[in-house]
Amino acid sequence: MATKEIQEGLEAIDDMLVAVVKSDVKTLHDASVHILTSGGKRIRPQMALLSYLAAGGEEFEEVIPVASAVEMVHTATLVHDDINDHSLTRRGKATVHSVWGRTFALLTGDYLFTKVYELMAPYGAEMNVIMADACTRLVEGETLQAYAAKQGTINRETYKEIIALKTASLFEAAARMGAKLATADEEVMNALSEYAFNLGLTFQIVDDILDVIGDPDDMGKPVGNDLIQGRGVLAVTNGLATKDGDHKGTAVADVAVKEKPDAIEQMMANLRDSGALEIARLQAEETGQRARNALKLVPPSAARDELADLIDLVLYRQR
Amino acid sequence: MATKEIQEGLEAIDDMLVAVVKSDVKTLHDASVHILTSGGKRIRPQMALLSYLAAGGEEFEEVIPVASAVEMVHTATLVHDDINDHSLTRRGKATVHSVWGRTFALLTGDYLFTKVYELMAPYGAEMNVIMADACTRLVEGETLQAYAAKQGTINRETYKEIIALKTASLFEAAARMGAKLATADEEVMNALSEYAFNLGLTFQIVDDILDVIGDPDDMGKPVGNDLIQGRGVLAVTNGLATKDGDHKGTAVADVAVKEKPDAIEQMMANLRDSGALEIARLQAEETGQRARNALKLVPPSAARDELADLIDLVLYRQR
Repeated sequence: MATKEIQEGLEAIDDMLVAVVKSDVKTLHDASVHILTSGGKRIRPQMALLSYLAAGGEEFEEVIPVASAVEMVHTATLVHDDINDHSLTRRGKATVHSVWGRTFALLTGDYLFTKVYELMAPYGAEMNVIMADACTRLVEGETLQAYAAKQGTINRETYKEIIALKTASLFEAAARMGAKLATADEEVMNALSEYAFNLGLTFQIVDDILDVIGDPDDMGKPVGNDLIQGRGVLAVTNGLATKDGDHKGTAVADVAVKEKPDAIEQMMANLRDSGALEIARLQAEETGQRARNALKLVPPSAARDELADLIDLVLYRQR
Repeated sequence: MATKEIQEGLEAIDDMLVAVVKSDVKTLHDASVHILTSGGKRIRPQMALLSYLAAGGEEFEEVIPVASAVEMVHTATLVHDDINDHSLTRRGKATVHSVWGRTFALLTGDYLFTKVYELMAPYGAEMNVIMADACTRLVEGETLQAYAAKQGTINRETYKEIIALKTASLFEAAARMGAKLATADEEVMNALSEYAFNLGLTFQIVDDILDVIGDPDDMGKPVGNDLIQGRGVLAVTNGLATKDGDHKGTAVADVAVKEKPDAIEQMMANLRDSGALEIARLQAEETGQRARNALKLVPPSAARDELADLIDLVLYRQR
């Protein structure tokens, strides 16, 4: 449970996100506000806020734009992802491209990305290098995923590489930047980064598990989507359950879905019965434990306790 | 004709552009190199290089990454534009999305944009604010254009706003950043920015004229494309040739093209006969003259002479 301070920080971030996308070009403004106010979990900005506090930061306002920028990166990629995945709903609301069409969704994603740049510009070289690097990794991860899914060759190694690049990198950057604003202590900075990187891995693995076993109403989006696209936990499964670890997940899923609409239901049932989810679960608990270990190098504080609580929240979330 | 120094600068930029998109993710690397080496005119980086020199800069290397970043912004938008316009060729080569497909083209554009960020990160707050602002305007201009074309309501005012945002802003930012690296003299900086902004307008108007009268072989892309999309010089025409200036350009073009494939040829012929191109031409000469006037506030130098020559090159180019 986030403290009052974090809650206020998150509200300030919500306000900043909406304020910064103000534009005379109505379509960009409307589409941006639509996605930004669609009830994201704001876990990435929490990485920045809590790391700042855990590293001893005392001027909370200085980390707000950075935390906002991190959420903005995430939001920009969601808009573009939804185009590529043809997703119609996200967080229980219509996706940008399903409302405004592909052209405007593409431009809205670009626009949000320019706003990342705007929010970060005042922070100087070192902070911007961290953020730029995280953005590059994120796009690399998305591309690797699209490529592997297309080829049907996701294996356990590729899956780990993908989730590190597309999810954990931004978590890590959020924590590193938050910490960096508060301290020059490299050890604390690295410990918080290590924590966030592993929390990011945990978050993504749980996300992929929820794609198979989650309740669509809780999730605010259809489940099985990642599975259809040959991604997600299926990949972990393949990697863990087969010897060579390159079972052609996508091809199977694609054919199945096309030939029999409820085949995906059957695949999900098979997956639930195969024990693969339990293996993925163990993996999430392992990365969660690594996050917990990393925190030991951070001085005790209320913020550090909250970071520790976040691990359980991420591990045991239902949506 | 560019001097030896500028020629060497442009070669350094070409090298930097290719070096910075190096990635373990082969698709991103290949697609990025494909578009970056497809023979762009490199007019935007020239704005940065020449403004730097004209403002008295002497450490040429310091402006190279900035000039590269400016070309990178432009290239990123080309990749995304080609998706939205369904263009198959660009500069005489296949577009990224026609070779790698839409998903990878979208990601490649995003990737190039993260590389802008990477190139700019070391330059500190003021430079990054200029660049972030130009990027935002560019996306706003693209969106305004897509929206107006879709509604069929481009008029003269909208056209001017669009080309200022989507083209002139980046020209201006290139010159301002180049100058800023070399001098603290606000008058010189503003004069070079004013020059570049007007050169950008000139460049775009001429581009739109060439879309109607250019030779497809010279241009390296099909002509009439902007016309089909309800953009470009047709908009100027409408604005200038009709009283209310909101003739439904796109709708007409779309219907015509769909119903009769060579109707677009007829439209182009009509346009050529209407005198509208001459009016657009006059407009380009007017903005060219404004660029020339702005240069008067810049101290005489070889670089200033080259900037003046560029106006004629832009006005009288055939491709």
